[in-house]
Amino acid sequence: MHALPIDPPQRLLMGPGPINADPRVLRAMSAQLVGQYDPAMTGYMNETMALYRDVFRTTNDATLLVDGTSRAGIEAVFVSLIEPGDRVLVPVFGRFGHLLREIAERCGAEVHVVEREWGTVFTVAELEKAILDSQPKLVAIVHGDTSTTVAQPLAELGALCAKHGALLYTDTTASLGGNLFEADAWGVDAATAGLQKCLAGPSGSSPLTLSPSAVAVINDRKSIEAGIRVAGDAVSAQPIRSNYFDLSQILDYWGPKRLNHHTEATSMLYAARECGRLMVEEGMPAVVERHRLHGTAMVTGLVAMGLGLFGDQSVRMNNVVGVRIPEGVNDAAVRGTMLQDFGIEIGTSFGPLAGKVWRIGTMGYNARRDTVLLTLAALEQVLRRAGFAATAGSGVGAALDFYSE
Amino acid sequence: MHALPIDPPQRLLMGPGPINADPRVLRAMSAQLVGQYDPAMTGYMNETMALYRDVFRTTNDATLLVDGTSRAGIEAVFVSLIEPGDRVLVPVFGRFGHLLREIAERCGAEVHVVEREWGTVFTVAELEKAILDSQPKLVAIVHGDTSTTVAQPLAELGALCAKHGALLYTDTTASLGGNLFEADAWGVDAATAGLQKCLAGPSGSSPLTLSPSAVAVINDRKSIEAGIRVAGDAVSAQPIRSNYFDLSQILDYWGPKRLNHHTEATSMLYAARECGRLMVEEGMPAVVERHRLHGTAMVTGLVAMGLGLFGDQSVRMNNVVGVRIPEGVNDAAVRGTMLQDFGIEIGTSFGPLAGKVWRIGTMGYNARRDTVLLTLAALEQVLRRAGFAATAGSGVGAALDFYSE
Repeated sequence: MHALPIDPPQRLLMGPGPINADPRVLRAMSAQLVGQYDPAMTGYMNETMALYRDVFRTTNDATLLVDGTSRAGIEAVFVSLIEPGDRVLVPVFGRFGHLLREIAERCGAEVHVVEREWGTVFTVAELEKAILDSQPKLVAIVHGDTSTTVAQPLAELGALCAKHGALLYTDTTASLGGNLFEADAWGVDAATAGLQKCLAGPSGSSPLTLSPSAVAVINDRKSIEAGIRVAGDAVSAQPIRSNYFDLSQILDYWGPKRLNHHTEATSMLYAARECGRLMVEEGMPAVVERHRLHGTAMVTGLVAMGLGLFGDQSVRMNNVVGVRIPEGVNDAAVRGTMLQDFGIEIGTSFGPLAGKVWRIGTMGYNARRDTVLLTLAALEQVLRRAGFAATAGSGVGAALDFYSE
Repeated sequence: MHALPIDPPQRLLMGPGPINADPRVLRAMSAQLVGQYDPAMTGYMNETMALYRDVFRTTNDATLLVDGTSRAGIEAVFVSLIEPGDRVLVPVFGRFGHLLREIAERCGAEVHVVEREWGTVFTVAELEKAILDSQPKLVAIVHGDTSTTVAQPLAELGALCAKHGALLYTDTTASLGGNLFEADAWGVDAATAGLQKCLAGPSGSSPLTLSPSAVAVINDRKSIEAGIRVAGDAVSAQPIRSNYFDLSQILDYWGPKRLNHHTEATSMLYAARECGRLMVEEGMPAVVERHRLHGTAMVTGLVAMGLGLFGDQSVRMNNVVGVRIPEGVNDAAVRGTMLQDFGIEIGTSFGPLAGKVWRIGTMGYNARRDTVLLTLAALEQVLRRAGFAATAGSGVGAALDFYSE
């Protein structure tokens, strides 16, 4: 096998993620490694924890990274919290709700599902009824589901879960940074994310935070590896069914005990730390506002071109919009031309929306004015040649007008 | 929280790993991202598969990366192959054998363990007896266990497993690239690795290979996510207990179906591909020979300084050596001075060897003449001030003599 050095084509990634990484994050990853217990390394780990407390808006001590993609963080929380037979309520309003259901089922949970039509979200009353009906130990819900581009309002759900004795988990992979999220103020017990959306990094590290209540459940199930166990260490009756995702062990690795678990993925830690650092320097309210500004500009331009939107716009995520593919326009051909001729990627959809809806993102490093205008300009050209003629300049013009307001 | 950009101190990592990454691998990771299904991305994935076939010395189609550290690869193989109640034989000769046992137990296996004193390995007769005694579905054994610095000879074990109807898994995290490994010639059904040892990359991606027999077992347990399932898709009666580590799904993501699973960790894929590319360009026999040469030079120098070695030297790994800490010498003080004054990290040990044995590595990018000579020179200085006086110049001199032979 003969292969050439990595030299990817230049792409502007304006789909639902992954998006282009901030060049500062890529530079952080090119830093040389240090040892696993080097004071520099443990210092970076501690700083990463502190930064993500700011990002998740929490004082939770247990705020750290799981070494894997976003769904690694989800599975770590589920397998660590859920004992086989535990009742878990999963309100599903898109593809990633189905993923939560599936992961919970694999953990042996008795999963109760309530579903909402894609593009809509649940009312508080619907969620309360589902909690009363299923009496769950854990409510697991996606915050922003990129498959439908809408975000479930969560501000009242934490109190509801607490009232009924359930823990609240939410998947913020697609929403964090782009939309208001308040782990503590909203009473969220566990939240996980990924770097590849509004956090402006590559996939491969999953920041997460756990409330003291969640940590207590997890630590009750702690076991210590035989190879490093010492006399007097407790052995749990209901051990966590995964070693890699055993958050009780991972907490001891990130905490003052520094008990060896995996070898931390140093370069991905550098990336995650830089993603967090850049957001915290900008300020989380400013990061969210930037996503709102450029997301709204994109939507304004798309509508002005005569395109229809998908989903309840009152709960649309700031960072991604669903666009109805016009009648007679070939989905794959348009996306292919956008990519091949203009180097711009926009997204297709899953399941019931496949071939019917494009997903266009403005997130992380790509939540910028130039990316919005370039995308609108190119899309107008491609759509015209595909048979859908928007008024020349309508999309870019409307976005420019919006920006100058 | 205010944090500065990543700027780690310069370290020469001469412990048991992680070691310094090859700068070419760090440069590969600084390349900008492309979309998950961009032809450039799927092309890189295919090339990565082909490169690791060469690295593992196999024709296995199912050769790919799991997005996580080395133990993510181990757990993916175990949870995908092992059904609860399956018998698994784990011959243990060091810490990482205990880890295999622990992961197999968490998968619900009936685990049979045979143990060998740390620093020794099993005879073929001992392994055959253990197989006959336990009648396992799977034999899981570490190839080179960094905790003891010795490697289990495996050339005859595959045939033995096949004769008795067992699959053979081996953990090559610490050995691959530094020592001869022949997946096909040795009849290995599953092998996993990591980048942070002889592969000269950062921790965070786990290359693995699966024989057709292993793939058949895994695909019998296939299930497809509800969110992307279509009519007619089979649903397994014994689904794999993890979504993230479900190799049947991961194979469909890496294979021609390109069925969405996780979002591939692009930067880590770039790293893993570059690690594989560099080894394949050098040639696997040359890579192993380089580790043998510099590993032997290091050992020659250490012995010439009057230091004792740990473990059966006839089966020592090329890439790491165990050194008995001399009487009266303070372990932590010596390692601390090496790190603080010379920027060189050497390793401590686990469990029964903690405080008694140092582990000194010569692996990956650090399997070089200059790193060997610098380490010997610094160690002589530090040991002298710690009360162990080697003849001045003895270590470096012996290594230089060895190199000039």
